[in-house]
Amino acid sequence: MSIDDYRRQIIEITGRIIELIGERNELAKKIAEAKRLNNMPVDDFEAEERLIDSILKECNNKAVDEDTVLKILSVLMEDSKKVQREVLGSGASTKQRITPMAMASAAMELERSGKKLYRLDVGEPNFEPPPKVVEACCSAVTSFKTHYTQTRGVPELVKALSVYLKRRHGYDARLEQIVVTPGGRFAIFAALSSILKEGESVLLVEPNWPMYREAVEYLGCRPIVVHTELNTNWEPSVEQIEGKIKQHTKAIVLSYPCNPTGKIISRQKFGEIIELANKKHITILSDEIYNDYAYSDCPSILDYDADSFVLTSSFSKSWAMTGFRIGWAVSSPDIIGKMLKIASLMITSVPEFVQYAAIAALESEDVVKRNSERMKTRIDLAVDQLRKIRSLEFMKPDGGMYVFPKVRDGIKDASELAMKLLRERGVSITPGEAFGDYPDHFRISLGQSEDVITEGIRRIGELLR
Amino acid sequence: MSIDDYRRQIIEITGRIIELIGERNELAKKIAEAKRLNNMPVDDFEAEERLIDSILKECNNKAVDEDTVLKILSVLMEDSKKVQREVLGSGASTKQRITPMAMASAAMELERSGKKLYRLDVGEPNFEPPPKVVEACCSAVTSFKTHYTQTRGVPELVKALSVYLKRRHGYDARLEQIVVTPGGRFAIFAALSSILKEGESVLLVEPNWPMYREAVEYLGCRPIVVHTELNTNWEPSVEQIEGKIKQHTKAIVLSYPCNPTGKIISRQKFGEIIELANKKHITILSDEIYNDYAYSDCPSILDYDADSFVLTSSFSKSWAMTGFRIGWAVSSPDIIGKMLKIASLMITSVPEFVQYAAIAALESEDVVKRNSERMKTRIDLAVDQLRKIRSLEFMKPDGGMYVFPKVRDGIKDASELAMKLLRERGVSITPGEAFGDYPDHFRISLGQSEDVITEGIRRIGELLR
Repeated sequence: MSIDDYRRQIIEITGRIIELIGERNELAKKIAEAKRLNNMPVDDFEAEERLIDSILKECNNKAVDEDTVLKILSVLMEDSKKVQREVLGSGASTKQRITPMAMASAAMELERSGKKLYRLDVGEPNFEPPPKVVEACCSAVTSFKTHYTQTRGVPELVKALSVYLKRRHGYDARLEQIVVTPGGRFAIFAALSSILKEGESVLLVEPNWPMYREAVEYLGCRPIVVHTELNTNWEPSVEQIEGKIKQHTKAIVLSYPCNPTGKIISRQKFGEIIELANKKHITILSDEIYNDYAYSDCPSILDYDADSFVLTSSFSKSWAMTGFRIGWAVSSPDIIGKMLKIASLMITSVPEFVQYAAIAALESEDVVKRNSERMKTRIDLAVDQLRKIRSLEFMKPDGGMYVFPKVRDGIKDASELAMKLLRERGVSITPGEAFGDYPDHFRISLGQSEDVITEGIRRIGELLR
Repeated sequence: MSIDDYRRQIIEITGRIIELIGERNELAKKIAEAKRLNNMPVDDFEAEERLIDSILKECNNKAVDEDTVLKILSVLMEDSKKVQREVLGSGASTKQRITPMAMASAAMELERSGKKLYRLDVGEPNFEPPPKVVEACCSAVTSFKTHYTQTRGVPELVKALSVYLKRRHGYDARLEQIVVTPGGRFAIFAALSSILKEGESVLLVEPNWPMYREAVEYLGCRPIVVHTELNTNWEPSVEQIEGKIKQHTKAIVLSYPCNPTGKIISRQKFGEIIELANKKHITILSDEIYNDYAYSDCPSILDYDADSFVLTSSFSKSWAMTGFRIGWAVSSPDIIGKMLKIASLMITSVPEFVQYAAIAALESEDVVKRNSERMKTRIDLAVDQLRKIRSLEFMKPDGGMYVFPKVRDGIKDASELAMKLLRERGVSITPGEAFGDYPDHFRISLGQSEDVITEGIRRIGELLR
């Protein structure tokens, strides 16, 4: 047979595949009708997992790569859900979560109209960046450090980060293990994009920062939720995590101190999770951006022997350099190599003078210490005040810059509370559903001054009384 | 039938789909064997297009979305090629193009070892940024413009850009039509990611900046090449473009003045391409980063009535602000909205003080004018000198900051020439294959001083003699 004959056969088989997808969609429509009758949602994570499981099991002996199967399943499942949504109409569309950024936009809108607000939503400390940093930034711009740099970062900064990692964590990072990024977000995105292929899944311990889920979804991958609860102190159990790991799970995201709860898990628990990850060959992405705002012993991924890991962090919180947009990642040279490709495609490099500002930050440890102490004072202050509000319960944060109270006796949706607070009392908070399935929780950020925190919480108490 | 019954049927059909993919892969192996015998490459763009065409035609009547079909085909074709590469071994892997950045890295390596080089590869003008910009940047950092901003950009900059667009192009851009980005690269990436879905295709007029192709491939989409030639003055024809547009084509990238050729197409041709794009419902992405380095009449997408377009640009070249990493895009509020989501996911915002520096840039038109004049001088100088080298032929650039000569009487691979030049004469250039199928061309950048250009070209002449 000639190539053309084979190709004709390929076209014929491909046609049959598409036909079968058509048949599949007919079934999806019937499922949608049945769901309507039974008042069931379109999204059914468990049913999807059962499908993936049974197909992967079948395929283990077959001539198709697991990678390909997962990609195909990802496309097929999306298509099925689209078909079901069409049948069920607009009511069936996935509920849009309120993001912290959406909340911030609503608040900014009001502020622009002249209203004075108590901003307990902004995840940004109101501290000033270290004087040395401001100086170094200016001096670098003035001396025309205004050029493209290596995507990894200027060698001086990469070296300085490696020295910092040694001092801060006792970790010897080779320069090939480091990349400088435009903020922690980009580090996390590039890391996930380097680790994951379409259709694969990632474990997310909720509640957590919504960015992780958004990045996973942008990449066409599946977030798998490890749900934790206030009444068990936001503690994930190793068994719970193990039970959630599927054949297609490639990573788990850990971030302690946690945004929004302030939880820090124990060194032992952290170690057990790493052991499990090693056993299951999955990568740990440890986002350690709040690591300097920790008020109990806080493990770092660098303290352990993880077979595959990425640490992401940033100058934003510890050094109050949010608006400089600079962060970093530490990983294996292999993963960092992939991250460099993505960074080189999308951004070339971080602004050169910002990189010199970051070097000065690494020489300003005193400021980090002072910021950390100030944040502790704010946590103590907020906790004292929140305890006086009878209708709230919460865990005192072990670190971070947030408190995540639950409204006792249940409210259905803290989003309504948030909008009411904003409109009637001029206080902005972030509803719990931004961070996972927590409709009766909300997040208070301690980024603003003690006065703002005090008055903001007083007003929350007033409204809840 | 119950939902569970339907689900069992879905699993069964999905299993058959995977089985067919297995059969398909068996055929791919046979094709690989036949290709080995006939010494044919794995990648066969035309065969892929025939497959897509015939499947899409069949599907027009069927119960499967075109979106879904294209995604499935994209996965299947990738899988087939992987299978074929496994059969054919490492020799069959796609040839890695040399990127300008790879060339720059090799050069930087040599420089660090102490070697003095004539850098004719760097796409960065050696001009200084405007004094006002440096001042504004410092003053913004010092006054603590160091916070997160709106993802779109601070309102003052967005407003200033809108005023600039009016002044520069007579275009009235609403603020919802603008987004500030960390460089032109990010603007282009976010634009393509907003326009394209997996498996769709984009027309690229080659030679061009390799970033476009890399972004399209990262997104799982198909670049379709419109090849242009020196002997027809790098002119794409409208018929040629029309012939390349497929059902799955969603965009065409134009960038004039062209990197690397310096070509500017006529206002009329530009208009005809837009008319064609409107007729075919495809989006024009016009990258106008070299627009101020134009020495013949240079059309902008804003001069026309394109139904769907994105303009991307940057402060890097006109204002010599490469290391500030700031650019912008103008499009419909709908596309800009999608771009904002991507930017908000990956980077939050451009550094606040950098945005204030950009406002100062927009007030420094005199500097742009001076830079433009200096670049013209360099083009004239380079052209004069290159004309003396008998073995080279080229088109005198209409604009931009590069010349793209062809080595007469053919060399097989300008990469070898580039390495030889670098090692033996200390001159770095970028081989033509970085920009498309141009193995006997190379790019000279005019970013460096007149002295460097003169001596660099002299050495090229020496080697070629």
